Amino acid sequence: MPSLASRPRGPRGAQADTRADIVRAALTHFSAHGYEATSMRAIAKEAGVDPSLPRHYFPSKSALFVEALGPLDQIDGNLERVIAGPADRLGERLVGAFLDVWDSPELSARMMILVQSAVGMPEIAAIARTVLLERVFLRVALAVGPDDANARAAAALSQMLGLVVTRYILRVEPIASATREELIRRFGPAFQRLITGTT
Amino acid sequence: MPSLASRPRGPRGAQADTRADIVRAALTHFSAHGYEATSMRAIAKEAGVDPSLPRHYFPSKSALFVEALGPLDQIDGNLERVIAGPADRLGERLVGAFLDVWDSPELSARMMILVQSAVGMPEIAAIARTVLLERVFLRVALAVGPDDANARAAAALSQMLGLVVTRYILRVEPIASATREELIRRFGPAFQRLITGTT
Repeated sequence: MPSLASRPRGPRGAQADTRADIVRAALTHFSAHGYEATSMRAIAKEAGVDPSLPRHYFPSKSALFVEALGPLDQIDGNLERVIAGPADRLGERLVGAFLDVWDSPELSARMMILVQSAVGMPEIAAIARTVLLERVFLRVALAVGPDDANARAAAALSQMLGLVVTRYILRVEPIASATREELIRRFGPAFQRLITGTT
Repeated sequence: MPSLASRPRGPRGAQADTRADIVRAALTHFSAHGYEATSMRAIAKEAGVDPSLPRHYFPSKSALFVEALGPLDQIDGNLERVIAGPADRLGERLVGAFLDVWDSPELSARMMILVQSAVGMPEIAAIARTVLLERVFLRVALAVGPDDANARAAAALSQMLGLVVTRYILRVEPIASATREELIRRFGPAFQRLITGTT
């Protein structure tokens, strides 16, 4: 039913629900069976929607994968708080917002699946890169100002990924068991400089 | 022949050669067949040594894997130059030494295998962590001074891993195609602060 897919009927709310149903079904399926063994068709079945609908909302399986596993709603909420506070402590709030996601057992399990997939599959890496940069770090960098925003966003992203690998993947001490406050103290100033472009 | 393994005969030079032969054979085998499909026995055969000898020199297959793939000789040489130069530009030299390894196509291919394995296999992650921390970053941190050396080493390691993921795995621009000089300029000060513990 391609006509249903390209011109969905019904009110806007119903569309949003369908999209959310697909994302939820995708999370369930990808988490249980992994990326390779999950098809768009299986996700549509799980969501109880027409088989063509996942492709209507998402250009590719990898795009749906990143959308489903990345806790984007939570990140959007966190980012508003990061951007809203005092400018001279932006770096500290950035570290805090990142820990809110990664120190949650449920969210960090999802993020770990994303990281492992991104390392092994270039198409996942490409989408993860775009999401991290455009939906997260570029927004924070632009809140500081327009100059050199891409480079500042990328630099702060690199420090954040380093913290992820050190704390959650390699579990390097004393970072792995450091408290939230210790990490904010140790890394806040570095993030502040990278995201504001001051050396 | 356990007696041969635990008390090898011959001059010290012959021992070093045997160990190097095993490491070279391991690199060949691991690169061609991957970690899982390579056995200590196959490495011994490839090296033309007694089957018990790899276990004499290395406590586990994962230890031999990290030793074989990690360009430790090159890193040792680089570190001497990092530590020897002026203290206020330590961070810049650290970035340069790291780029010397990762911008070499042959070495970066080996490092990439290590990274992918570390993400998927906790026993590889554990050894990679020890090697990176104790053989690389702790030595640089201790060259600065004894206070808080572990925490400074871990913090600088986290920034380095972030640069690896951003430049070589996710290929985030403008970091992915930045020149050596641009990266030294942008990240040198951050490394300097993290490794010296100044904020």
